[in-house]
Amino acid sequence: MNIIEPSVLSGFMELLPEDQVRFNQTKDRIEEVFRRFGFWPLDTPNIEKEEILTAKGGGETAKQIYRIDPAAHSTPQALRFDLTVPLARYVAEHNQDLAFPFRRYQISKVWRGERSQKGRYREFYQADIDIIGREKLSLLNDAEVPAVVDRVFQSICEAKAVFHINHRRLLNGFFSYLGIEDREETLRTIDKLDKIGEEEVRAILQDDLGLSDDQTDRLFDFLEIGGDNEEILAGLKEWADREDMPEEFKEGYHDLAYIYRKMLEFGIEPDRVVIDLHITRGLDYYTGIVYETFLEGYEEIGSVCSGGRYDNLAENFSKEHLPGVGISLGLTRLFYQLKQADLLKLGGGHYLQALVLSMGEDAIDPAIHTVQALREAGIVCQMYFESGKMRKKFSYADKSDVRYTVIIGDREIEEGVLSVKNMETGDQVTMSLEELIDQIKQ
Amino acid sequence: MNIIEPSVLSGFMELLPEDQVRFNQTKDRIEEVFRRFGFWPLDTPNIEKEEILTAKGGGETAKQIYRIDPAAHSTPQALRFDLTVPLARYVAEHNQDLAFPFRRYQISKVWRGERSQKGRYREFYQADIDIIGREKLSLLNDAEVPAVVDRVFQSICEAKAVFHINHRRLLNGFFSYLGIEDREETLRTIDKLDKIGEEEVRAILQDDLGLSDDQTDRLFDFLEIGGDNEEILAGLKEWADREDMPEEFKEGYHDLAYIYRKMLEFGIEPDRVVIDLHITRGLDYYTGIVYETFLEGYEEIGSVCSGGRYDNLAENFSKEHLPGVGISLGLTRLFYQLKQADLLKLGGGHYLQALVLSMGEDAIDPAIHTVQALREAGIVCQMYFESGKMRKKFSYADKSDVRYTVIIGDREIEEGVLSVKNMETGDQVTMSLEELIDQIKQ
Repeated sequence: MNIIEPSVLSGFMELLPEDQVRFNQTKDRIEEVFRRFGFWPLDTPNIEKEEILTAKGGGETAKQIYRIDPAAHSTPQALRFDLTVPLARYVAEHNQDLAFPFRRYQISKVWRGERSQKGRYREFYQADIDIIGREKLSLLNDAEVPAVVDRVFQSICEAKAVFHINHRRLLNGFFSYLGIEDREETLRTIDKLDKIGEEEVRAILQDDLGLSDDQTDRLFDFLEIGGDNEEILAGLKEWADREDMPEEFKEGYHDLAYIYRKMLEFGIEPDRVVIDLHITRGLDYYTGIVYETFLEGYEEIGSVCSGGRYDNLAENFSKEHLPGVGISLGLTRLFYQLKQADLLKLGGGHYLQALVLSMGEDAIDPAIHTVQALREAGIVCQMYFESGKMRKKFSYADKSDVRYTVIIGDREIEEGVLSVKNMETGDQVTMSLEELIDQIKQ
Repeated sequence: MNIIEPSVLSGFMELLPEDQVRFNQTKDRIEEVFRRFGFWPLDTPNIEKEEILTAKGGGETAKQIYRIDPAAHSTPQALRFDLTVPLARYVAEHNQDLAFPFRRYQISKVWRGERSQKGRYREFYQADIDIIGREKLSLLNDAEVPAVVDRVFQSICEAKAVFHINHRRLLNGFFSYLGIEDREETLRTIDKLDKIGEEEVRAILQDDLGLSDDQTDRLFDFLEIGGDNEEILAGLKEWADREDMPEEFKEGYHDLAYIYRKMLEFGIEPDRVVIDLHITRGLDYYTGIVYETFLEGYEEIGSVCSGGRYDNLAENFSKEHLPGVGISLGLTRLFYQLKQADLLKLGGGHYLQALVLSMGEDAIDPAIHTVQALREAGIVCQMYFESGKMRKKFSYADKSDVRYTVIIGDREIEEGVLSVKNMETGDQVTMSLEELIDQIKQ
């Protein structure tokens, strides 16, 4: 027979069983936190109509979309590239059946045909939460979203989450105040500040975007408001209090200050929030608060979770006004990064609690009854069915990372006991089934 | 703005939040049983190279495959149509890193471009377990697989599973014995027995397939072996004991009898196993035991879970001989059917245990602290953040299927208590946070 080389496509993560257990543990912990915060699960189809996915128009993601072969399907369709567009479609489609604010989480795979590189995947899990309101949505939601993420990282990661927040209306309002018209290009230039430095940015702003000396100076006065959060808020308040400052800036300041204070009420420590006026990523997409999340002491990993407030989630699919706020965690990449940095917080211990071995034909049925009794007690275990030497059986126990090996032979059957070998210490003792169950469950 | 009609593709299941909770509960219970039986999780990529998926050659499934648009990708690739082919590829690819017998479960979506009809989906979850051996695999594995399924149905379904089993080598051996050459067509004809009746089947066997009167009579003698399982085994033994009976039949009889007896040792009640010589579905695919699973009292639903033994799982991807046995449950369809028949076994109760309402601005922070404290105690809960009348807030509590509504206003803050309304009884009492936690956790 012609043998086909067994391999996965490049850019697709596939894990060995022990890592898969760790990945699932991480995923389950995230889900458990999302649920505790009262988010409802969704599981939208992986394939959507293409007109739904591209409703917002072109952009990078549209180019990266995985289309289904149009030759075989009359309706153009493709794999989702995020979980936000399907949510918008879902909320618009089912709005009569949902209670608003609608809180949902979804942890599912998405696909993007990016150039594959280390730690970047074409198929990856996103773990998203969003809260969608009808007409209005309280800013308290904006304060709660990072609290969810904070709890998630407490559950899955040895490092603490640090939230960098900014507000779209602050910068927009300030641009109006300065009379800057090309907001998008100005944003993009400011985004380069940490990379190319102030001098370079000033040059671009003046030479390419035509800002005056005064405009540039005042923009930098604003961007350079420094100090701790209280000092930054005080600095922003000074600007906001100016009579000639546009309403937009004043509102942005008020919202940001309110959300910051309420984040603290939700239990986020003040030194793990950074009001960061340099954050511009996402400011063209979001309309209010913007979050980026970093890991304390591991900032070089980059932002591990980002999101923000949007005015109108489903504007392409509904005439209803549905404001929302949400955040998205790229789980596949994060798992890879946390594993590399040895930051994964795991339950530890063994997956298989017991491996039951039968010695001889007569021991098969008693061994079956034993492994089934352990399972009824909720214990993850297995019986080794294959014939062969004891050495082979113990080598399987070693490879399978088993906690206890349970041996049943003539002597054990006669005495009504089990021989139990602790695979960590190598100690072997006899005990009853009940004692074994107790010991494993301890 | 141009509004695009929000809708999913036909043949794709999408659930409202409360049903999604039920679906996830069902899925989680299945997974929990798979784990208890010592199966390891896998999560292979949804997209595989097309040469992998079609390695076994044409057939119905190859026609139904969802290909990724070849215009955008140089490597032909497609969505998996089952979980068995990816498993074969996985085992062949990672064989050096796995302990054999390798026990894995996977609960994931697959795609098939079937004509969509009620209860049939183009995107659906399969829940699979398989045990893959190297060179050899004990028949005890074949006996354990239905025991897993039995436990799964105890967990998720009000009706009991009934296992119909047959063995490929029985019929094949019998065909040899009778000198029937076109085994495949004969199988396919026998498969129609329950639909078109004996007379019609006899006619096809003789007129179309050229069987003699004697061949047909003896085939029916065999197919009509009746009675309970012990009687059927006795009837089979009579045939097996004939000197001129081919080895293949004798082995088939021996294996089937052994697997049946060991299924009982695994705790499956004898009256929930049917040795059913009429089962032919899958006999062309599998090489040993074949399982079909029905629900007692709901046989009209059809087989809800099927599988069997295969000689060599990964023959297209590896020169190693890897025999396996497994079973597959079509979860999406099953969920639909169990729901329709009101057979879903669910935990019951409410998803949201508490909804915290603040009365007035001063109550916001105490309410935030309360909802966070409930969450730290592991309770699924939510605070309602929006302003508005109490009626609106209670209507949200009703719609969200909340167990307790917790009201915090000036009086509660002053007295250090919570007003707690039981949404089922309508009773409202005051209690402390600790009392509320205890009451919810009871």
